[in-house]
Amino acid sequence: MPDRNRRITFARSPQGLPVPEDFGADSTAIPTPGPGQFLSRSIYLSLDPYYRNVMKNSQMYADRLAAGDVMVGETLAQIVDSRHPEFCPGEYVAVRNGWQQYALSAGQGVRRIDPNTAPLSTALGVLGMPGLTGWSGTVYLGEPRPGQTFVVSACTGPVGSTAGQVARHMGARVVGIAGSQAKCDYAVNELGFDACVNYKSGDLAALLKTACPDGIDVYFDNVGGDTLAAVIRNLALGARIILCGMIEAYSMDQPPPGPWLGPVVGARATMKGLVVYDHLSRMPEMTRTVGGWIRKGEFRWREDIAEGLESAPDAFCRLMRGGNFGKALVRIGPEKL
Amino acid sequence: MPDRNRRITFARSPQGLPVPEDFGADSTAIPTPGPGQFLSRSIYLSLDPYYRNVMKNSQMYADRLAAGDVMVGETLAQIVDSRHPEFCPGEYVAVRNGWQQYALSAGQGVRRIDPNTAPLSTALGVLGMPGLTGWSGTVYLGEPRPGQTFVVSACTGPVGSTAGQVARHMGARVVGIAGSQAKCDYAVNELGFDACVNYKSGDLAALLKTACPDGIDVYFDNVGGDTLAAVIRNLALGARIILCGMIEAYSMDQPPPGPWLGPVVGARATMKGLVVYDHLSRMPEMTRTVGGWIRKGEFRWREDIAEGLESAPDAFCRLMRGGNFGKALVRIGPEKL
Repeated sequence: MPDRNRRITFARSPQGLPVPEDFGADSTAIPTPGPGQFLSRSIYLSLDPYYRNVMKNSQMYADRLAAGDVMVGETLAQIVDSRHPEFCPGEYVAVRNGWQQYALSAGQGVRRIDPNTAPLSTALGVLGMPGLTGWSGTVYLGEPRPGQTFVVSACTGPVGSTAGQVARHMGARVVGIAGSQAKCDYAVNELGFDACVNYKSGDLAALLKTACPDGIDVYFDNVGGDTLAAVIRNLALGARIILCGMIEAYSMDQPPPGPWLGPVVGARATMKGLVVYDHLSRMPEMTRTVGGWIRKGEFRWREDIAEGLESAPDAFCRLMRGGNFGKALVRIGPEKL
Repeated sequence: MPDRNRRITFARSPQGLPVPEDFGADSTAIPTPGPGQFLSRSIYLSLDPYYRNVMKNSQMYADRLAAGDVMVGETLAQIVDSRHPEFCPGEYVAVRNGWQQYALSAGQGVRRIDPNTAPLSTALGVLGMPGLTGWSGTVYLGEPRPGQTFVVSACTGPVGSTAGQVARHMGARVVGIAGSQAKCDYAVNELGFDACVNYKSGDLAALLKTACPDGIDVYFDNVGGDTLAAVIRNLALGARIILCGMIEAYSMDQPPPGPWLGPVVGARATMKGLVVYDHLSRMPEMTRTVGGWIRKGEFRWREDIAEGLESAPDAFCRLMRGGNFGKALVRIGPEKL
């Protein structure tokens, strides 16, 4: 074990899209667990768009950051020392260690991860909070019926690819929206979607009209903005829209206007806001079901792994520009020592 | 019976807010019913904001208008001649006669009106389609719980005053939004609302924050635009928004952008589009329940009646500027001959 704990810190609130200079780096002594605490070493850091919102230091999130604070974030980690009665050295956990190599935890909100269920990294992706987001939004808010048209944006990311594959398992016709032909090919050929629209290849509303001739019954929205507006022009009667992410707006200081909602009335549509924390109690059913599909080869995912803690700022900035392809992770340490 | 049928006709699609020159006037021979038809004389013409959308001649409505066509619209009328097996001379009906004194009908979509239930004119207001709109949206989409805060815009009109009073009968705390102090006084003193906000008296989001300190649980939206945006900044957790009318946009050629939807996610809110035609089967329960409240003096309404068919264009233009106070009607003929 090294004697220093390297960290990536918050330097300042970004202006628009984040840049590497919005972060700092330092190292501290590796802490020692007190009574009821454990120390874990981070293996994977999850990079999630909502960190950009946290960096605004707005009222929206509980986390508040001062310059020099370690960046917050979820990690997959292994316990190396414990004075906690329920956690033992050697165990793997999903824990909010932040952007650093080592951290203490009192066990709150920590999920124990069975390394035999699926690859460890999935605990931060399709079998973690992003997967639970896609699962809960699709099963409980979107409720696609067999044969209905289910559209999902950012469809090769962990939320979108889970939502789309869950909808496919529910019998829906699944149409993805992504930002490159390579992502679209992956969605159709690997994720089993029926079609995928590259929003950079033309007028999105027209492309969706062609891909969804009977209209869109369910839209799982991970991006907001112009994409949402294009979907709203193609709703089927009784459509459901799950509002999950508005990534475009995360890098804006002032929220942009939204879409014209007239067609929502005409379609008798329903729009529902999704916050994954309301659905934490569904984690066991999600991991059981999706984990089962994974073991039978009926559910796929893709990861985009940056190597080394120091690469985290660059990788995060790339994520916010839409440059990642699959779940964005940073490898901080080896899976096994 | 006169020998000519005076009519108000469609002249052209308005530019922005409608003006009297968008209408014409003429007279035709009074028609004679053929087999299966009846002739009725119009007593009241209902003025409704959606006529402005019909005048766009867009795809949204079934009615299409050519210059010189009689304006479409719902009327309360009395049958004067009938070759229809189910309708007799002397009976009162709610029928789409349009903006004219006399019209034929084959009975489709006609509601027979009992003149002993309530004043005849209510069949076009709180006991007609506007009332059904307020009833269905509140009872089936908004679902206010006792003690929850229910907000309704255009709250002294027939839809809004019905929605608010239904919510009051369901045990909710009702807060209206209207455009004058006189309307607000009426909402509190006559309709029994707990509070009413005059949107012309300051920053609406701040006024709503004061009037709804625990947030807004249900919003019945009759106007869209800036009012909807101000409400969205004051949502309680789990809020429901009923999208019913977007009056501001009816007078625009291009739909305006909508509100920033971020807070909808944070509040886990649901937005639902309401089209009253989906709820026609609920007309009997609405007239039974609201009619009962009316007879017990527990439900009020207000009408803004223009005298004479020729006053209809002016009265409609005033309605679209928000100048009416109560259900906008035009008296075309006497209730009894």
